[in-house]
Amino acid sequence: MGTALAAAFLKAGHPVTVWNRSPAKTGPLVAQSATPADTAAEAVAASPLVVVCLTTYDAVRTVLEPLSGQLTGRTVANLTNGTPEQARDLAAWAADEGAGYLDGGIMAVPQMIAGPHAYVFYSGARELFDAHRETFAALGGTKYVGTDPGLAALYDLALLTGMYGMIMGVMQAYALVGTESVPATEFSELLVPWVGAMLGSAPAWAAAIDSGRHLTDVSSLAVNQEAFPNLLAAFAAQGVSTELFAPVQPLLDRAVAEGHAADGLSRLADLLRTGPDKGSSTS
Amino acid sequence: MGTALAAAFLKAGHPVTVWNRSPAKTGPLVAQSATPADTAAEAVAASPLVVVCLTTYDAVRTVLEPLSGQLTGRTVANLTNGTPEQARDLAAWAADEGAGYLDGGIMAVPQMIAGPHAYVFYSGARELFDAHRETFAALGGTKYVGTDPGLAALYDLALLTGMYGMIMGVMQAYALVGTESVPATEFSELLVPWVGAMLGSAPAWAAAIDSGRHLTDVSSLAVNQEAFPNLLAAFAAQGVSTELFAPVQPLLDRAVAEGHAADGLSRLADLLRTGPDKGSSTS
Repeated sequence: MGTALAAAFLKAGHPVTVWNRSPAKTGPLVAQSATPADTAAEAVAASPLVVVCLTTYDAVRTVLEPLSGQLTGRTVANLTNGTPEQARDLAAWAADEGAGYLDGGIMAVPQMIAGPHAYVFYSGARELFDAHRETFAALGGTKYVGTDPGLAALYDLALLTGMYGMIMGVMQAYALVGTESVPATEFSELLVPWVGAMLGSAPAWAAAIDSGRHLTDVSSLAVNQEAFPNLLAAFAAQGVSTELFAPVQPLLDRAVAEGHAADGLSRLADLLRTGPDKGSSTS
Repeated sequence: MGTALAAAFLKAGHPVTVWNRSPAKTGPLVAQSATPADTAAEAVAASPLVVVCLTTYDAVRTVLEPLSGQLTGRTVANLTNGTPEQARDLAAWAADEGAGYLDGGIMAVPQMIAGPHAYVFYSGARELFDAHRETFAALGGTKYVGTDPGLAALYDLALLTGMYGMIMGVMQAYALVGTESVPATEFSELLVPWVGAMLGSAPAWAAAIDSGRHLTDVSSLAVNQEAFPNLLAAFAAQGVSTELFAPVQPLLDRAVAEGHAADGLSRLADLLRTGPDKGSSTS
């Protein structure tokens, strides 16, 4: 991803100094007229904007902390995947260093960078974002989501969450039809429009969540609670793993037990925020 | 749902005899010119096509089995939600009774019946479907999916599976942004197009599943395995339940451990068919 970002900046005409933990990786960028730095310190010294993209925040800390005292007056734009908490902690560290900090969440794979569908969430001080917005535009769309540095990670993770849920559903559906030798390609012609149509209810669920009124005349939690065992029984009978879907049943049971039988599915978002393992660690 | 089905047949001009376990429920249909039957036997005797829609297959058995000997030459179209296995068992029972059997999976809520977006999957003998196709068209679109009577339920359940996965993702995403007071309605403007765009990969995943070649240049299982703990950690740190998403991690771990690190996500559908609880019961 770092290579894709640097290449996009170069293509947009920005002078770029590159450093990588594995120096060989910068070769193609140097061929595109990037300036190679022998050390991270050298790279940081070269420009007012320091764009960081590594695999984890731990890796970011390992690279940046030894540069203490050398970041004063720089703006660090950290596009590494992490949690809102990690972003806030790093922002606080940067502030102690006298550096500006922006956090970014990249909604693209490397191949999409600088293309029409890529965009990046940014959070942190508005004036820092405004100062570098045109530079960031080289990467794709720019979506500024607030001064709290944790927000870019929050938006990024929440979109990935929606995507992973969809993937769980699609993969389980393909597995299920596969048990009867129905080709997935044939079934996808029904599945894609169906899930797309059902996704059309998401704005109405959002309105219910924001208003706290989880009304439905279509599909109550009680109806879903009653129907779900049929789905799990079918998975088991067809020899498909229930591991991804089994946890839905106790959630529906809890919703009904807590008095929400007549509510719509949107109530589940509230329940997930007050669930049995609220705040516990799972790693 | 039974009321909606009968009303649709009446509206299309078909003579309809109605019976319900709770006789009061047929009142509105009788007002629309349906003929009331005092007993299920009377209803079955009235017409060559017997449409059954109850809450469970157990309920269907409870109603139909006492009518043994009275179904000869009739066609039973059972639109009750169930599993492929239940449909096949009931079809075998109907065959023993000298009755034709079609199974149906209704892709609509009652309010949608006879509307432009409702459709019903049918499976069973092709000639029975053809004989009643025009009658069924009163309910919405008709999709015949094969002679195996279990297929309508399979298709129905697989679409619901895809829908539930999407709902899990959307609800978890709303719960996550809600922890920082981001309005769900605001976030839905990003979430819906994003999930819709990612759903666009479903036909390519299907092609990979059918070909057995799970290639990717975008997002390997190894990359997803590495990224997923970050998502679970963020849920925990933000106080959102991990109950729906925690099972994805061991599935990704298993995929990589079994040598599929470089494969795309489509490999998961294969893994779900050969999972650790393959064939086990969960109810």
